[in-house]
Amino acid sequence: MSEIDIEAADALPAAALHDEDDRLKSSFVDAVIECVEQGDAEGARALVRPLHPADIADLFELAPQDMRQPIAAAIAELLDGDVLSEMNEWVRDELIDALAPHEVAEIATQLDTDDAVAIIEEMEEEDQRAVLRAMEPDDRAAIEEALSFPEESAGRLMQRDLIAVPEHWTVGDVLDYLRRNEDLTTDFWEIFVVDHKHHPIGTCKLSWVMRTPRKVSISDVMAREQTLIPVDMDQEEVALRFQKYALISAAVVDPAGRLVGMITVDDIVHIIQEEAGEDILKLSGAGDGDINEPILE
Amino acid sequence: MSEIDIEAADALPAAALHDEDDRLKSSFVDAVIECVEQGDAEGARALVRPLHPADIADLFELAPQDMRQPIAAAIAELLDGDVLSEMNEWVRDELIDALAPHEVAEIATQLDTDDAVAIIEEMEEEDQRAVLRAMEPDDRAAIEEALSFPEESAGRLMQRDLIAVPEHWTVGDVLDYLRRNEDLTTDFWEIFVVDHKHHPIGTCKLSWVMRTPRKVSISDVMAREQTLIPVDMDQEEVALRFQKYALISAAVVDPAGRLVGMITVDDIVHIIQEEAGEDILKLSGAGDGDINEPILE
Repeated sequence: MSEIDIEAADALPAAALHDEDDRLKSSFVDAVIECVEQGDAEGARALVRPLHPADIADLFELAPQDMRQPIAAAIAELLDGDVLSEMNEWVRDELIDALAPHEVAEIATQLDTDDAVAIIEEMEEEDQRAVLRAMEPDDRAAIEEALSFPEESAGRLMQRDLIAVPEHWTVGDVLDYLRRNEDLTTDFWEIFVVDHKHHPIGTCKLSWVMRTPRKVSISDVMAREQTLIPVDMDQEEVALRFQKYALISAAVVDPAGRLVGMITVDDIVHIIQEEAGEDILKLSGAGDGDINEPILE
Repeated sequence: MSEIDIEAADALPAAALHDEDDRLKSSFVDAVIECVEQGDAEGARALVRPLHPADIADLFELAPQDMRQPIAAAIAELLDGDVLSEMNEWVRDELIDALAPHEVAEIATQLDTDDAVAIIEEMEEEDQRAVLRAMEPDDRAAIEEALSFPEESAGRLMQRDLIAVPEHWTVGDVLDYLRRNEDLTTDFWEIFVVDHKHHPIGTCKLSWVMRTPRKVSISDVMAREQTLIPVDMDQEEVALRFQKYALISAAVVDPAGRLVGMITVDDIVHIIQEEAGEDILKLSGAGDGDINEPILE
């Protein structure tokens, strides 16, 4: 641990918006609702703008059902894909249903493929088609490919944006490639090394790359032992692999062994919770337990 | 995704040691046992050496109880901390009980603090003291400090080895620091930026550092919005934070707000499963369900 003593600004004060369960305080939710009811959309946005996407999602879950649409209208510009992907699915579907296909398409375009798929796969088939028609061809192709895999399979979970490099590159080549190509993803924790058939032959933690001199070959840094996920593997099985081998990310391969995507542990954490939920459900014989779920009569 | 076509070796063939549930095949376990029974320790080690630590742990869980000690004796040099930390706790405690304190101390020394604590906290107090006495002063101090925090708290989960840098450094300074200091940890996914009081003021994903030119200040790359974990927070609460904010790692702070450790998501995945297990237990009223757990009469 570095113990360097330096001159620096004090730490920012921690936000005092949360209750002891780390949910937004009801007084904050009430303040936003009051702005919306008084037609002060700018005031509502000023309150919501500093929030983490997970907290904006919370705001919708905590607000009364009849206020969710008005809040969404007031803070529309802040309601992006990150917020939707954090949202409880009942609340999210309610909001999505009220949006026009081109609005859903615009939000889905900002997301990683797996998060976009999670939203679109819940829609009626007709609405799905309308949303896909409103997307750019590249984005549409990625979503359509994901939807072609079975539900709850690795193919639905994975994202296509990843960093793959040839094994003859050096650490310096990798750093230059990452710095010079602005359109590469910024969300990755490991680099995959591939052969000329695009088969993954090794995985490299970023910390290893960063601790190694530029002239060293990437193939001397990578781990050859790696856990490859077949694209049709069930998501519960994927979660077990992540747990067993303490994975942060893993390469997904097609039946020919080619690298086609990447799954990261933050998607898996939700699966573990979901699967635990399903197990509990089976044992207890109770309902979903989601307070936002409508009670069917 | 890079689509570069290069000349390269074919991918290594996948190991064919696992059944469809990703556990070691019983034929493999039998082969190891046969070596051990015939006194061929070198043969047993040759079989086990290529395995992932999680699979070596599996081997012990799958072997009959009366064979676990003989296997441990035969492959002792391969039985390190990584293997023990992957092992089912019943099987692990059984093995640990049979080891001398200095052997346990040697294994614990190889581990991250959190994994060493997980092993030592399960021992009888007298055995704990014997193990701690056999450790180097630095390692002992880290373990004793961890044991001073409540069970199932962030202080027990965290590791002390992390990367903290002052905010006036550039990206180039960070890279040079990481390359020149060989004794730094290699297991980190984010870098913490601290002020002169060692308070964390920002967090930096490694991918951001790698995609940024050397001359840029680290304080222009870091995210100032971060989730800080108080050292006395309950582990279930920690797991909820990781899920809600999709964290890969998080800084742990003492009551004065100073950075004292780091928790990573791979430790949290086990907590989520454990907590789900506890919940299922409460609902079903059944036992632990661990096939390795001895049946008490």
